[in-house]
Formats: sequence, C-alpha cells, structure tokens
Amino acid sequence: MTSAAPDLLAPAADRTAPPRVALTTGDPAGIGPELLVRLLHEIATAPTVPDADAGSPAADRPAHAVTVFTTPAELDRAFAQAGDAVDRAAIESAAGITIVDTGLDLSGVPVAEASEAGGRWALDHLELALAAHERGEVDALVFAPLNKSSLHLAGMTEKDEMRWFENRLEAVGPVTELNAMAGLWTSRVTSHVAHRDAPDLVTASSVLSATRLLHDALVGTGVAAPRLAVCALNPHAGENGSFGREEIDEIAPGVALAREEGIDATGPFPADTLFLRARDGQFDGVVTMYHDQGQIAMKMIGFEGGVTIEGGLPLPVCTPAHGTAFDRVGTGTAALASTRNAYELARSLAVAARG
Amino acid sequence: MTSAAPDLLAPAADRTAPPRVALTTGDPAGIGPELLVRLLHEIATAPTVPDADAGSPAADRPAHAVTVFTTPAELDRAFAQAGDAVDRAAIESAAGITIVDTGLDLSGVPVAEASEAGGRWALDHLELALAAHERGEVDALVFAPLNKSSLHLAGMTEKDEMRWFENRLEAVGPVTELNAMAGLWTSRVTSHVAHRDAPDLVTASSVLSATRLLHDALVGTGVAAPRLAVCALNPHAGENGSFGREEIDEIAPGVALAREEGIDATGPFPADTLFLRARDGQFDGVVTMYHDQGQIAMKMIGFEGGVTIEGGLPLPVCTPAHGTAFDRVGTGTAALASTRNAYELARSLAVAARG
Repeated sequence: MTSAAPDLLAPAADRTAPPRVALTTGDPAGIGPELLVRLLHEIATAPTVPDADAGSPAADRPAHAVTVFTTPAELDRAFAQAGDAVDRAAIESAAGITIVDTGLDLSGVPVAEASEAGGRWALDHLELALAAHERGEVDALVFAPLNKSSLHLAGMTEKDEMRWFENRLEAVGPVTELNAMAGLWTSRVTSHVAHRDAPDLVTASSVLSATRLLHDALVGTGVAAPRLAVCALNPHAGENGSFGREEIDEIAPGVALAREEGIDATGPFPADTLFLRARDGQFDGVVTMYHDQGQIAMKMIGFEGGVTIEGGLPLPVCTPAHGTAFDRVGTGTAALASTRNAYELARSLAVAARG
Repeated sequence: MTSAAPDLLAPAADRTAPPRVALTTGDPAGIGPELLVRLLHEIATAPTVPDADAGSPAADRPAHAVTVFTTPAELDRAFAQAGDAVDRAAIESAAGITIVDTGLDLSGVPVAEASEAGGRWALDHLELALAAHERGEVDALVFAPLNKSSLHLAGMTEKDEMRWFENRLEAVGPVTELNAMAGLWTSRVTSHVAHRDAPDLVTASSVLSATRLLHDALVGTGVAAPRLAVCALNPHAGENGSFGREEIDEIAPGVALAREEGIDATGPFPADTLFLRARDGQFDGVVTMYHDQGQIAMKMIGFEGGVTIEGGLPLPVCTPAHGTAFDRVGTGTAALASTRNAYELARSLAVAARG
C-alpha cells in the first residue's frame, strides 16, 4: 500500500495491534535497500513471522504494520539489486506495508561507495522516520546499515549514529549501544573512546546504567529475569588490585547497586574466560567495559544474525550489526538474517514498551 | 632410566641427536604430575612422536632425550592419579627418559589446593632444571601448570612466572609471553598491567620487540616467512586519531621498523575483525597490545591444545596454556593435548636454536 504523506498513517488501534515499525534503507549506496525489500517480501508473503511474539492480531487484519520511508527511484534500484526472488507487486499491495514517498532526489547518489549525497539521504530519511514517531505514528525504527564516512561527509558532527540519535531525540538518560546475537546480548560502559580514556569513564554509576539498560532490553524481549555477567576492566580482573583498582573501586560497587534494584547481575569477572561461559549459555547478557572487549568475543561467536540496538532512546531503534558491504551490492550474497532479527527485535521491544 | 644426580646426564652427542628437554611437574598439587607421566608414557611407548620434525635420530638410539626432575614420592602420587592407562615400568626403563631424584620432601605438600609448600616445590624444581641448562645438560624446559597463589605464598616476589624466569636467567633482551594454538600464535606488547597503564607501554620499540619475538618463534617452528598482523590498541584502530593516536604515533612506526628487518608484518588493524581473519588462516601470528585482546580471542577459538611460550629467554621454555585445575586432579578428565604440544614445541624450538 502506497501513501502520499506520513500524516495519513493510521494510529495503532489497540494494544493487540501489531507494533508500527518505521523502516529506512540506511546508506542508499550499500546493501541496505536490497535487504529492506527482501524483508518486505517476507512480510508481504508470510501471514505471520515465525517465532514473533509481538502482538496477537485478530484474524481479519494484517500481522505487520511497517512504514517504509523511501522513493520510487530508490525502490527501482533496490528491486533491481534484489533480483527475481522478490515480488514487488506483492509488497506494494500488502495491507501491512505502507510505502511513503519522501520525494527526495536520488539522482546524485552513487552506488557502492561512500558519498556526501548518500550520507545526506540516510540522515534525511532517518529524520522523517523520527518525525513520524514524534507525531505518534510509529512505535519503533529499524534502519539498514549506515556508512560513517558518508555521514561525516554529509556534515554529521557526532562521532557515530548513536550520538546523533541521542542529540536528535534529546535523550534524558544514558544512551548506549547494545549488541545481540544468538541468545547473547552485550552492553558497553564505554564505546568509541581511546583505550587510555576508558578507565576514567568506568564508574559505579556508568556500570549501573549499562547493566540496567541491558536488563531492561532483555526483559523487553521476554526474558523474565535476565542473568547478567559484568566484565572486569583489567587483565585477571586486576588480581585484587595488583594491576588496576577499577574492579574494586567502581565495577563491584556498580554491580551491587544493580543487585539492589533486583537485577540478577554478577561480577566483575575476568573477560577472557567470561565469554566462554556466556557462549555456553550461563548468562543472557554481558556488560562490557570497552568496545573491543565485547566486539572481539561477539565477532568470534559469529556475525550471522547480529543486531545492534541503540539503547536508552525514547523508541526502540535496531539495525543489523554488519556494515554497508559496498562490495556485495547487487550480488545476491548479502545475508538477510541480521535485518530480519533487527525487525523482530524492534517489534518485541515495542510491544514490551506498551507496559 | 633413573639417575641419581643431574651431573650424570650425557651431553648432546651431535646435531642430529634429539633435543634434550627438562620436564618439571609444575605445581605438585594440580594436574601437572599426572599429565607429565601421561606424556612420559607416550614418549616411552612410541618410538617416534607423530609430526615431530625435531632432529633425525639414528635408528639405534632413542628419539627422545627427556630429563624429569621429581622424586619417587611425587611419582607415586602421579601414577596413582593417572591410573591404569600409564605403564610405569615402561617409563622407568625407557632409554630416552632420565628421571632425576631431586631428593626434596613432598610430605608437607597438599593435593588439589594452593600452598606455600607446593609453590616452593614448583620453584625448587624449576631451579634445578635451569641449573642443568646452565651446566649445558638440557636444551629446553617444559613445565606443567603453576599456580600463582602457591608461588606468591612461597615468596616469589615477581608478578608472574615470566618475570621470575626473566630475573632468574638474567635475560638481556625483551621477554614476553607468546601463545600458540591450532596454527595461530600471538605475542603481547603488554601483559599483566592495568588497562590504564598499557597505552604508555605501547611504543614503536615495544611493538617491534613483540613482533620480532613472534617472528623468530614462528621461524623456529619451521614457518619460513611468518605472516604477522599487528593489532590496533584503540577501537576501530582509533579512526585516524579520532579516539587515540597510538596507532599513528607508535604502532605503525613499530610495524615499519619490523618490515625494515624483513619481517612480513602488517597493521595496525582493528582487533575485533582481525582475529576472524587470523582464525581463517590469513596470518600465522597476531601481535596484541594488551592481555585480554589476545586472550579473549584465543580462548574463543578454543582452549584445546594451547601452549604458552616464555619468549626471549636463553632457552626455549614452554608450558600448557591451561591452569592447575585443582578440581580435576585424579579424575582422569584432564586433556593431554596442551602438554603434548608444549613438549613438541620446545623440541622444535630447541632444534631451531642450533642454527
């Protein structure tokens, strides 16, 4: 179903309605557009999504309520890149899919490379999706991969998209990236900061925030009492203060504060062995102290299906954990799993946010 | 073959003789003693060790030349713990195995727990093995797992065994721990230091040293031109100095110095994706900037068979990468792979050191 303007979107009818998810293609030069139409194909052709526990739609209305912010020109590109496996007519006639023509001009946007025009396109479409949220028309946002170079060429002053969302949405509490894949979630106390700057940012308060965000996100996906483990910062957890005192002075107190709130958090544990226990299912989530601590482990566990969640924003915002993969555009080799999982996760979180 | 005193050991007859390897049980309370007798069983019952490229012994002399520093009482314990699969008579009569009775008293050493007596035993036996090396009687050392608590209870003032070896042997160049498992090696620029202290220790010179040690060790195991990758310190390799300048100011210059020496080193690369490439066989070794950077990845790849090498000492010193596993003593569940690999690696490095 195609709509001329966002303000024609229907409000959610009731608490059993499917969550309304805004979709954008991310960087238009990457694999985002083709992944998005492949996701739309699944939505259009499957009456319900397997394992989705989001909502319980009545039999006479669609199981999905997605709004795609794009243009006919971008869809032309995307369908051409996605190939024959995607049924455009089914997508454009599906009752649960609303396609909003944003009216922006794609002609100057190159394919398979970073560009100012591509970054501008990505930001403008995110902006339109967030405006729809602010009008009460969508409950969650899923965007396909962005390209940081494009965003910075387009004038984004923030270090990364997480900070862009934080500023754009005027988030009041702590915002952090969460990562989820194959039953294991991580949150980060620090992220895109220098190795030498991380220790001073590890405080009882920041540990508590990252633990609480991870807890709330997991509860939002239906894990009633998430088992969380908190990483140490230093090797061997500092060996009782022999090399580093953050475990004693900040991390353990932060864990204690989380436990006082009823969160099942334990630690700090030495990071190198903790991820083995987490991978083996002993924990639902791991709170990491710095970017590479979690990313090394999560990438070793496997890229397939990973989702990044911008945690702490006023709406659920999810994106596939992989990048724009310029070298794969139109080759039919991009895996849909992360995009599908990002969409399902956004739906679950939106349902949970209904309270 | 049992010998009363170390000075009866035969010198290596020629360059084709098997390398002479000293063996100690490490912490006598852990799984070390039983692993050691299981290794001796393999040596005693296999005429040659599969895949060993160390030496080319003539048909009429043994393929191995190991000297075990222990006591009859410790062997009694070890054989009891190892169970029926180990043939004590075969070991004690094997031509390639010399058992040196150190005459020390085991009676006060507990089993399956850390103790001052256990730490003292471990250090005294390492001391005897090193003395044999200094008399020219052994070419390499393999010790079964140590327990840091026992060592510190016994009065070891150094932070870890690597520093103990460094002081004891008065090493003149840089000493660093290397880790090897399943075809992938790592070295560390920093190790048991606080997270906040690591960046100042990452210098062009220390990067060069860790790269050179890794190169030399791999050459020593028969890799003619090791392909080495060097990790970044900061997330995303600092994104061109956006968060951290060590990549620009120290690591890249260190890599350049290594290349000037003819070492095939590249980097720095963001650590989170680098280990995927390394695991997939694109590199023979990875130079890491801090302890957990390598250890998270290596432990995700798998404990099985991992070896730690104390690099930069005047003789090859290898040990299994796992610990004393007090909870497994005598249960028959300890895996021999790491001990076997440590022994084979020490042999290869000793042969390579002949030049």
